[in-house]
Amino acid sequence: MAQPKGTVVLAYSGGLDTSCILVWLKEQGYDVIAYLANIGQKEDFEAARKKALALGAKKVYIEDVSREFVEEFIWPAVQANALYEDRYLLGTALARPCIARKLVEIAQREGAQYVAHGATGKGNDQVRFELTCYALCPNIKVVAPWRLPEFYQRFPGRCELMDYAKKHGIPVPVTPQTPWSMDENLMHISYEAGILENPKVIHPGRPASMAATGPRAVSCICSLIGNFRGQSTSPNTPDVLEIEFEKGVPMKVTNAGDGATRSSALELFIYLNDIAGKHGVGRIDIVENRFVGMKSRGIYETPAGTILYHAHLDIEAFTMDREVRKIKQGLALKFSELVYNGFWHSPECEFLRQCIKRSQEAVVGTVRLSVFKGQVYILGRESPRSLYNEELVRLKEYHRLQSKVTVKQDE
Amino acid sequence: MAQPKGTVVLAYSGGLDTSCILVWLKEQGYDVIAYLANIGQKEDFEAARKKALALGAKKVYIEDVSREFVEEFIWPAVQANALYEDRYLLGTALARPCIARKLVEIAQREGAQYVAHGATGKGNDQVRFELTCYALCPNIKVVAPWRLPEFYQRFPGRCELMDYAKKHGIPVPVTPQTPWSMDENLMHISYEAGILENPKVIHPGRPASMAATGPRAVSCICSLIGNFRGQSTSPNTPDVLEIEFEKGVPMKVTNAGDGATRSSALELFIYLNDIAGKHGVGRIDIVENRFVGMKSRGIYETPAGTILYHAHLDIEAFTMDREVRKIKQGLALKFSELVYNGFWHSPECEFLRQCIKRSQEAVVGTVRLSVFKGQVYILGRESPRSLYNEELVRLKEYHRLQSKVTVKQDE
Amino acid sequence: MAQPKGTVVLAYSGGLDTSCILVWLKEQGYDVIAYLANIGQKEDFEAARKKALALGAKKVYIEDVSREFVEEFIWPAVQANALYEDRYLLGTALARPCIARKLVEIAQREGAQYVAHGATGKGNDQVRFELTCYALCPNIKVVAPWRLPEFYQRFPGRCELMDYAKKHGIPVPVTPQTPWSMDENLMHISYEAGILENPKVIHPGRPASMAATGPRAVSCICSLIGNFRGQSTSPNTPDVLEIEFEKGVPMKVTNAGDGATRSSALELFIYLNDIAGKHGVGRIDIVENRFVGMKSRGIYETPAGTILYHAHLDIEAFTMDREVRKIKQGLALKFSELVYNGFWHSPECEFLRQCIKRSQEAVVGTVRLSVFKGQVYILGRESPRSLYNEELVRLKEYHRLQSKVTVKQDE
Amino acid sequence: MAQPKGTVVLAYSGGLDTSCILVWLKEQGYDVIAYLANIGQKEDFEAARKKALALGAKKVYIEDVSREFVEEFIWPAVQANALYEDRYLLGTALARPCIARKLVEIAQREGAQYVAHGATGKGNDQVRFELTCYALCPNIKVVAPWRLPEFYQRFPGRCELMDYAKKHGIPVPVTPQTPWSMDENLMHISYEAGILENPKVIHPGRPASMAATGPRAVSCICSLIGNFRGQSTSPNTPDVLEIEFEKGVPMKVTNAGDGATRSSALELFIYLNDIAGKHGVGRIDIVENRFVGMKSRGIYETPAGTILYHAHLDIEAFTMDREVRKIKQGLALKFSELVYNGFWHSPECEFLRQCIKRSQEAVVGTVRLSVFKGQVYILGRESPRSLYNEELVRLKEYHRLQSKVTVKQDE
Repeated sequence: MAQPKGTVVLAYSGGLDTSCILVWLKEQGYDVIAYLANIGQKEDFEAARKKALALGAKKVYIEDVSREFVEEFIWPAVQANALYEDRYLLGTALARPCIARKLVEIAQREGAQYVAHGATGKGNDQVRFELTCYALCPNIKVVAPWRLPEFYQRFPGRCELMDYAKKHGIPVPVTPQTPWSMDENLMHISYEAGILENPKVIHPGRPASMAATGPRAVSCICSLIGNFRGQSTSPNTPDVLEIEFEKGVPMKVTNAGDGATRSSALELFIYLNDIAGKHGVGRIDIVENRFVGMKSRGIYETPAGTILYHAHLDIEAFTMDREVRKIKQGLALKFSELVYNGFWHSPECEFLRQCIKRSQEAVVGTVRLSVFKGQVYILGRESPRSLYNEELVRLKEYHRLQSKVTVKQDE
Repeated sequence: MAQPKGTVVLAYSGGLDTSCILVWLKEQGYDVIAYLANIGQKEDFEAARKKALALGAKKVYIEDVSREFVEEFIWPAVQANALYEDRYLLGTALARPCIARKLVEIAQREGAQYVAHGATGKGNDQVRFELTCYALCPNIKVVAPWRLPEFYQRFPGRCELMDYAKKHGIPVPVTPQTPWSMDENLMHISYEAGILENPKVIHPGRPASMAATGPRAVSCICSLIGNFRGQSTSPNTPDVLEIEFEKGVPMKVTNAGDGATRSSALELFIYLNDIAGKHGVGRIDIVENRFVGMKSRGIYETPAGTILYHAHLDIEAFTMDREVRKIKQGLALKFSELVYNGFWHSPECEFLRQCIKRSQEAVVGTVRLSVFKGQVYILGRESPRSLYNEELVRLKEYHRLQSKVTVKQDE
Repeated sequence: MAQPKGTVVLAYSGGLDTSCILVWLKEQGYDVIAYLANIGQKEDFEAARKKALALGAKKVYIEDVSREFVEEFIWPAVQANALYEDRYLLGTALARPCIARKLVEIAQREGAQYVAHGATGKGNDQVRFELTCYALCPNIKVVAPWRLPEFYQRFPGRCELMDYAKKHGIPVPVTPQTPWSMDENLMHISYEAGILENPKVIHPGRPASMAATGPRAVSCICSLIGNFRGQSTSPNTPDVLEIEFEKGVPMKVTNAGDGATRSSALELFIYLNDIAGKHGVGRIDIVENRFVGMKSRGIYETPAGTILYHAHLDIEAFTMDREVRKIKQGLALKFSELVYNGFWHSPECEFLRQCIKRSQEAVVGTVRLSVFKGQVYILGRESPRSLYNEELVRLKEYHRLQSKVTVKQDE
Repeated sequence: MAQPKGTVVLAYSGGLDTSCILVWLKEQGYDVIAYLANIGQKEDFEAARKKALALGAKKVYIEDVSREFVEEFIWPAVQANALYEDRYLLGTALARPCIARKLVEIAQREGAQYVAHGATGKGNDQVRFELTCYALCPNIKVVAPWRLPEFYQRFPGRCELMDYAKKHGIPVPVTPQTPWSMDENLMHISYEAGILENPKVIHPGRPASMAATGPRAVSCICSLIGNFRGQSTSPNTPDVLEIEFEKGVPMKVTNAGDGATRSSALELFIYLNDIAGKHGVGRIDIVENRFVGMKSRGIYETPAGTILYHAHLDIEAFTMDREVRKIKQGLALKFSELVYNGFWHSPECEFLRQCIKRSQEAVVGTVRLSVFKGQVYILGRESPRSLYNEELVRLKEYHRLQSKVTVKQDE
């Protein structure tokens, strides 16, 4: 056994990789605390807890960060109309700083000097994790086994991991592996790597047998070919929704068909996931530029996020001054790039969030839209702060409204 | 009769307004030359010619500018991924400088000192027309009757126009007017004004009885409600297309289903209009900010343009360096704004086109996509200039490719 | 005598032009209230008051707006490092919205429906005046005689103005006119037009006989040739100053030589004008692009503004995060352009000021500099919020400081 | 002796550090080729050659890159008005990719797999060197001893280097070290580190005894305090120069006093260094943000570069369309940042250079300026492509000129 090295908090997923990492860290002499974030993914959290303890974790934290994910990370992205490289709604990128922030909190609570994660050395997630950790706790030390020669040389392929798992009593998955990797949270599912690395291979669709909840629940077949199957089987009548915004944040959704409403952030977002997923909304196949400098192909499904992107864009255009919008658009472009690259907790990203938030003060009103066969159609909009007025020009209208607001405040 | 004032070239549409303007200009003492651009709209051009001559036009020019519209105006917009305020593909804005350029050419050929148009004083089109005219021919004088008190005070409403028409033998439309106004060209149809001015009114759909060609031909019902009807009646199998790009310009489209191909710019564009229209692609309902400072609601249909937007975005992301892309994105944002505001023929817009064109040199390859139920899905892509390579990082890969190219040139 | 037209508030300078305008407005049937802003220029205000009353003004307002000019207009420009086209410190552009705001206030207080100014139809000032008036009081009507044919056709040249003046008892200047026009306020003096319109003519210098106060007082000879004369006669020892900033605003200046200090905004600014003027700091000869679309040559003297530009740039670089700085720099570029073009009171300019102000929260510290022979040299700087630290990298340092600040607040 | 490792080309300066590195690399088993770039610094190149050979270099390259430095690196920076963080003219940053390009060329000519440099692990220069090397030759391997533990742990301080030098017969400098480090090339001298690391310490000036040529030759005392002494002793009459530009590049300088002219790039630049240096032009003391994320204080002297910055800014403003200028300004901001950070040979920097070059086509004309007591004053300008014209507005003027140019081409 190695020299004792102190305590490490491991971002644990319950899967093969981080289970092996847990055991390996113990071998290296660390006391391991496992931390598993509930951020909306389908998971048997109690089974994961037992598994981690069985593998020797000193302690297990299972933390539900769903609500803060929506309120503190997704809402600012909605306000920004955040979009990376014109297409990607940043589902994974938004989740990482939320997960990692809690990781640091736990490390500080437990007096741990180390945190560890299972991200590889080629992807964005290592960067996103570590920038958050260093930003929030400059003295923390990050252990990234997939970047350590003593780890990656020991596990050059999946076989070696499997062998190690069997040897150390780590339960090995019995179902065959999908030929790509997935990441799931409340905001989106992504499919990457494996056979999808060839950018002209068409995603063959997800086995129908796979159980599903969250975004997954509502879209049984994610593939783009699957879209057509999905849409053939998707409802033949649209759902018409009304979404109310205040300061650029969705406050309430009403289904014009059955009158259903949702008002709390988390419930509203889950409801939109249900509706959008049912109609196959928000699936894209793109090639994007990773932080580390290579191009990568990803297939993403972002149901609620896609509806909110379109709805917010519309109410913003309706209520925000043209020139303010142009400036804000430039800020949001930068914001999206920073979020993608893991800089959520940086001073520049915080500055941008403050500026963008400031721009949203008059973004209030209701957007009516329909969801149907993979599409979101805006049908109409109304707002007490509309700058839409056929008679008056821009500057006059702006100050007319300002004075109304002032008068109201005086009353 | 008024004093002779010289010759004016009138941008003539054949409709009630410009017919009345033609007669009115004659009354003011002008010799009127009528000019009607064929830019892909449905129109009985010969009937329009006869009508103009009957109303007293000294001469009539009917000019087919379709091909130059596609090659010189739409292709640069495709290269730019041009999008105004995140949503509008600029169909009308691209057509205006193409139409007005020919207007100036005719005026110069005819030695006319004046040009005239029927655009109103509140819209973008007056600006787009006039900036082009002044830019290309600084000494030209623009007559804009709808901004002249002696004209607009005489015709405060449609009734007065109708009376004037009857009195002067101008044929009056017999079908009832649609409760909005439309503009159509090869790139798009727009629906604006009238009942649509209320931003929460849902567009009730176009009468099925209306004949249609061009974008119109392929989308019998344009309304957004109509989308669902349209999509209910739209084909239940997707069309899968392959689009080949060179230097960011589409060179060939192949239908993977029936093997049909189109290669010339104009035919390729019309073919994409057909396919996209059949599946109801490219319909949006937005509020935008006009040049003159007010917000305006428009409903647009841009079938081929929407396919090309998605396809070009994809092949560009696949072949262009990440950082070049970011710079080019900023330039394109500015380009879109200038085009919207009528500055196509300005020095800054020309500069941007040159820079954007330069960025497209390696944008070559084929995108495979499907068109179905109002959506465009990217399925895959390939390119001889792909920067997609899982092993190498950005700068190294760029120079590796550069040297290959150089070698090839040397051979 | 014309029909009574109501009351107009005239921005009155006391000079020949606005005196003639005052009388002419009365002839047109207006009741004229004269308003003269004291914004730091040399002027015999009491003489101006008597003159206006003698010419028939119903009332005269002489308003000292110096302090609000410094605090509400110059300070935000210092925070922004505002610079138009890389060179112009915006002295006139900052003064106009300050002067015009008071003009509107007086019109509202007096129940006047009209305001009037003496700016010409080719310059920036008409735009700056009128955008402020319309923005702050959408219903106000602006009378701009130099754009009215009935006025400018009556006064095609200076002779006609002189004749009119003599006829109506308007005192005519006895000294010969300078061969250019000047504008002066606390921030700067500008020299434009006349012989300076030829961009290769070298400014021959101001007659030494002209009295001078303000920026003028401290720089007897403004010409660029004069600079050398000026600097030959300027002190042969530098003045060394320490300027303390809080939130990007100068709070105190100390002269390291004689220990003199100034702390109130207005006194501090006037003191810097004295010191900088003595050493001939802040004189430039440029060609700039006017709002109305032509290039214009201007010669400017901005003594205190030049010192503060350099000092603020330095303390900001010392205390602001690199990436925040880059974003803020982009915002400030836009801000400068808006200010130049008269959009101070627009929503986008207000938004930018809020964002820029937000960026200044940690811009605190002291800059030591010397002023000598026309130059400002930074000598050193210190700050409790410095991000300068050779050991730590950016993100870590930022959060270390943040937590310190938080701790302090908790104490 | 270590195992043979192949050939390394070392960027050799002749100083203590790289001499020790040369010997150390040999100890590690490398064959060492020394490369010393002549980029305008004061140096006894033949002595350096002998020294390198004496220390065991297999071969020594001394390459004069001065002319290409001016033409291929400084001229594009002049066209861009390149300025990092509003103040730094990029003297060192421009030299690095020029020096490193030759380094790679030599490595390729010699079939060497390795290049080495003596830059430290905290500065910008390591990045600038290595990005160039990897970009131009993706397979090259960079040996950076100051980042290798086996090197930096052996030489924790200057004493250990001195001991090593004595032991290996490396000549040790006899004059006491300056309490800061310097870098010198044709463009500038920089002073950093040592006692200057304290940002409030005032630079005490360079010993008058130090020999000087190049920028150094013309400014015996570089300190900012020294400026005043320097300027007291600097000439009491200005030099008036006329600089002619074509396509944004200086083509000829004429001294209005004695009629001296210089036309070739290198001679022109050296002449401007002489004149500017004589008058103490171009000295600044700043804090800047390094690539690696820390703030750093630097004192720079850029004589000719400062004159050309002001002159080019002026002729550009005079001849370039306002809106093109704004776009170009944004591109140049990005360009400056890339150059500072070492990305000269990146695709995005190449793209920016092409765009900026394109913007310079009409930047032609002559600027008259004076140089005196540390300042550059613009006196006037003229150009056959001036857009300065009091009668016409922007778009009209632009196209009027365009057509003139076209006509001329047709003649």
